[in-house]
Amino acid sequence: MIAIIGGTGPEGSGLALRWARAGESIVIGSRDGERAKAAAAKIAEKAGPLGSVEGVENAVAVKMCDTVVLTVPFAGQADLLKQLKPSFRQGTVLIDATVPLATAVGGRPTRVLGVWEGSAAEQAQEIVGKNVAVAAAFHSLSATVLHAEDDVDCDVIVCSDDDRARKVASDLAAKIPGVRAFDGGKLENARIVEAMTALLITLNIRHKVHGAGWRVTGIYGSG
Amino acid sequence: MIAIIGGTGPEGSGLALRWARAGESIVIGSRDGERAKAAAAKIAEKAGPLGSVEGVENAVAVKMCDTVVLTVPFAGQADLLKQLKPSFRQGTVLIDATVPLATAVGGRPTRVLGVWEGSAAEQAQEIVGKNVAVAAAFHSLSATVLHAEDDVDCDVIVCSDDDRARKVASDLAAKIPGVRAFDGGKLENARIVEAMTALLITLNIRHKVHGAGWRVTGIYGSG
Repeated sequence: MIAIIGGTGPEGSGLALRWARAGESIVIGSRDGERAKAAAAKIAEKAGPLGSVEGVENAVAVKMCDTVVLTVPFAGQADLLKQLKPSFRQGTVLIDATVPLATAVGGRPTRVLGVWEGSAAEQAQEIVGKNVAVAAAFHSLSATVLHAEDDVDCDVIVCSDDDRARKVASDLAAKIPGVRAFDGGKLENARIVEAMTALLITLNIRHKVHGAGWRVTGIYGSG
Repeated sequence: MIAIIGGTGPEGSGLALRWARAGESIVIGSRDGERAKAAAAKIAEKAGPLGSVEGVENAVAVKMCDTVVLTVPFAGQADLLKQLKPSFRQGTVLIDATVPLATAVGGRPTRVLGVWEGSAAEQAQEIVGKNVAVAAAFHSLSATVLHAEDDVDCDVIVCSDDDRARKVASDLAAKIPGVRAFDGGKLENARIVEAMTALLITLNIRHKVHGAGWRVTGIYGSG
């Protein structure tokens, strides 16, 4: 079972949809259990019968699952993780998709804030502590594209200091049709992957599209 | 005529080779005019008869050309540009491909240094002044791949505050078979593109290859 904290938002619900279609059991988390339930019902209807989607309050979702995916705006990330910390089981894998966009402080979505720990993902690791294994992933997947029917023409770079967390994130990436996972090294490299998402927003604006993404080339042949 | 400062190195000579093959007139610059001449002769032989390649001392190369491409290690970038500043003509386009890898101070090639101006490219702009239009580009092209015979399976993100510099860099990118240029917005965004090159080095190490690159997707169809 996979908890998606921020699962009522466009990115989280898009991931939920894709994973439910792949047969996974998804638990949508929200501050408000009723909102989570309503969002889950919508996603379940769109996803079809293969997987399952339920909705509960954030802390309940974290308690229920071995894998927790965090898709919230950066402005709320630290406070939310502090609140949820007691709910994490020992050994939970936390996959952080947070991008520290400057919008968190009224700035532009094409810029990132400097995070003292180095990245939003390292901030997450510092808050949840060593009992939780953090991987950074899924930043680059456009919510618009996740909610569409086509295969996703974008790769996912996974950064982690924990081999199990890296594998969990990589396996989840591969469950989204079209997506390939690449090993982006240590969690500290999340600062680059997070910033790349701001650059994708620039590419969207400059080229007047909504779903710019990346393919890695030169590894398994052409992207 | 295109001056390539650092044109005796692997990245600069690879770009020179590709552009000479496309029929461009290339001037290889080096601290040592004789070394530049020897490198130019080698590149010219490999490139064939279409373009031309000559080699001269750096300041002479800058004086000769309207377009100057800088492909030097970060450790030498600032000093070299200070020396060369009087040689730039009014209106020269400087295309900076410098990546502030931590190797400049004995660190890892998978990490970048924080540059006070924001990026190596913005440092370049500050040094050369407003008479020179700076674009940041070509960071992501693997020297190994540039020296091979195949088309290059990688895109180039161009960042600039000057439309003419952006166009010059984009046109040069398109002269390399396989490469497409994308508008990466303002010069300040070079900090992201530079860091992405450190991540490509991580991908090379983790996946045991030499030519990892990027394709942008979701703009003109699949990469």
